Amino acid sequence: MKIDIIISADDIKKEKIENKIVVVIDMLRATSVIVTAMNNGCKGVIPVLTVDDASEIVKNSKEEFMLGGERNALKIEGFHYSNSPLEYTRKSIEGKTLVMTTTNGTKAIKGCSGASNILIGAMLNAKAIASRIVSLNKDVVIVNAGTYGEFSIDDFLCSGYIIDCVLKLVEIELTDISVTSHYIYKNNEDIHNFIKYANHYKTIMQLGLSSDLEYCCQKDTIDIVPEYKDGTIL
Amino acid sequence: MKIDIIISADDIKKEKIENKIVVVIDMLRATSVIVTAMNNGCKGVIPVLTVDDASEIVKNSKEEFMLGGERNALKIEGFHYSNSPLEYTRKSIEGKTLVMTTTNGTKAIKGCSGASNILIGAMLNAKAIASRIVSLNKDVVIVNAGTYGEFSIDDFLCSGYIIDCVLKLVEIELTDISVTSHYIYKNNEDIHNFIKYANHYKTIMQLGLSSDLEYCCQKDTIDIVPEYKDGTIL
Repeated sequence: MKIDIIISADDIKKEKIENKIVVVIDMLRATSVIVTAMNNGCKGVIPVLTVDDASEIVKNSKEEFMLGGERNALKIEGFHYSNSPLEYTRKSIEGKTLVMTTTNGTKAIKGCSGASNILIGAMLNAKAIASRIVSLNKDVVIVNAGTYGEFSIDDFLCSGYIIDCVLKLVEIELTDISVTSHYIYKNNEDIHNFIKYANHYKTIMQLGLSSDLEYCCQKDTIDIVPEYKDGTIL
Repeated sequence: MKIDIIISADDIKKEKIENKIVVVIDMLRATSVIVTAMNNGCKGVIPVLTVDDASEIVKNSKEEFMLGGERNALKIEGFHYSNSPLEYTRKSIEGKTLVMTTTNGTKAIKGCSGASNILIGAMLNAKAIASRIVSLNKDVVIVNAGTYGEFSIDDFLCSGYIIDCVLKLVEIELTDISVTSHYIYKNNEDIHNFIKYANHYKTIMQLGLSSDLEYCCQKDTIDIVPEYKDGTIL
């Protein structure tokens, strides 16, 4: 069993993920939203690439959908919720289906077709992800959504934490980039020490969303592993 | 002025390097060979992608060429020299033109067309690279050759050292991946502490090439900056 990392949604290559377990991470904030919503009873999340795609789905269905996501880290006009995980309480999302579009996260999820499993990971459910990986017992690629096609420190740190959780369960082979991400995490187990260098972290702080950051940096508060299959995350 | 990093020859994207200064690094060992050969009086290095391309050049020219490079880290049949920088002494290379093909390094160099400058970097000439970057005063992308299309710890550490040298001269903006590589270097200024985790390092050690490794890990023993332009490194 081997763990590799892809550093951004723009760097996904089909041959690298084919028939492997993929864990998609966009910890600030898309995958933290998905993990939170599903843990609070959301019926399912449909990730889409564009605002138009989201409107199309809502228009052509009798089911009632909630619309969530962001552009430039802000709520999209006409949508019910933004990309803040704090909005996805049990009261707001239980029993409802969420149609979601974000700049980096939903692109990363939809870019992973061909993988054997597409798991949705964050700091919030890292231990649960590690257990699932070990039980599936196949090669893993952690796909960091990144930020606008670039490597993002937040997702890289989260990858290092997931690797750390796996290493506590089984011996695994690490690629050079996995070794590096694990090293960064082990030197910064209080992830605030290093995540503060992330440009994306600074952007979110400037928008006054520090409570989102605090929430997303929590480890293992959620025990579920959402999985993307046939267009929906369940 | 901003510094970014591309993690492997397979991840070079035209729009990321266009009109920027590129520093190509394949410290184990192609760019260490080039820097050493040029410092020892080599007339110029012609990087080519395949063994056939190298033979073509030799066949169609009256000039006498030396042939150097590797496949699977070993000397190519019929070539004068391998990819060991220790073979490129003044006695062996002075006044001669080198045609070179390696698995990762020459691919990275040739993949960077469109950049304003393509500089050849290694640990050996990192300070000289930093000075040249500062005098050119433009955005920089450090292109790590990597190993077989993968991120390689050795090149990433070398990138961190070059960034460290630049930061000692001027204030610069760093992308998330540049921050990460600089952090790895600052925590491992004796680079042996971390380079030992590189899979490529282990391969070279297993081939009994530890003296090459010792040589390539030296800092700033060479003060020149070779540059690739119109097919030749001068």
